[in-house]
Amino acid sequence: MNTTPKLNFLPSENFGEGVWVDVVDMQKAGEKAFPFKASRIVISPGQWSPLDEHEVRECWFIAAGEGTLVYAGEVTEKVKTGDFLYYDSFKSHKILNESSGDLVIFSMWW
Amino acid sequence: MNTTPKLNFLPSENFGEGVWVDVVDMQKAGEKAFPFKASRIVISPGQWSPLDEHEVRECWFIAAGEGTLVYAGEVTEKVKTGDFLYYDSFKSHKILNESSGDLVIFSMWW
Repeated sequence: MNTTPKLNFLPSENFGEGVWVDVVDMQKAGEKAFPFKASRIVISPGQWSPLDEHEVRECWFIAAGEGTLVYAGEVTEKVKTGDFLYYDSFKSHKILNESSGDLVIFSMWW
Repeated sequence: MNTTPKLNFLPSENFGEGVWVDVVDMQKAGEKAFPFKASRIVISPGQWSPLDEHEVRECWFIAAGEGTLVYAGEVTEKVKTGDFLYYDSFKSHKILNESSGDLVIFSMWW
């Protein structure tokens, strides 16, 4: 059997009440393989992700759930499963999970 | 209200029976913003994605569903919601949706 192309995640990190982040361990793919980093974010119902702001650019794929996004200090339209979001440098962002289940986000940053 | 950070998708492309690919339209974010391209792939229950092989590297986040992956011509372990897969250059790959619902994949390539 071939080596599986599945990559593991680093140990879960807690980013506030009901917010867990699992960063992809890219070492197996070779140091220079990826031009970005990636993680899986899980937010419990009714919880906010902590406000985040940084120089690196980031994008989010919404894998499950829906909620309200606050971007650069202002409430934007609701986001839902299947959406793709892009955050420019130094644009703050946080999201409230308004689903009955987990809000699951795949994040890439570079 | 601020400009939403939501990016749109280009028109859906059909990649075989029950396989649809929506590429993210990154133009709004600025031509050079992204070091990769991205798409959302939806595969109906019981369907295979077409065999794909290319020089660009690719990774998949499994957003929903589960199935069997064939990588470089060999069956690998089952993949499921939340998994992260990495395909090196010229490693062929295809997946069978063994879920009762859609298999949803977020793909990035560079």
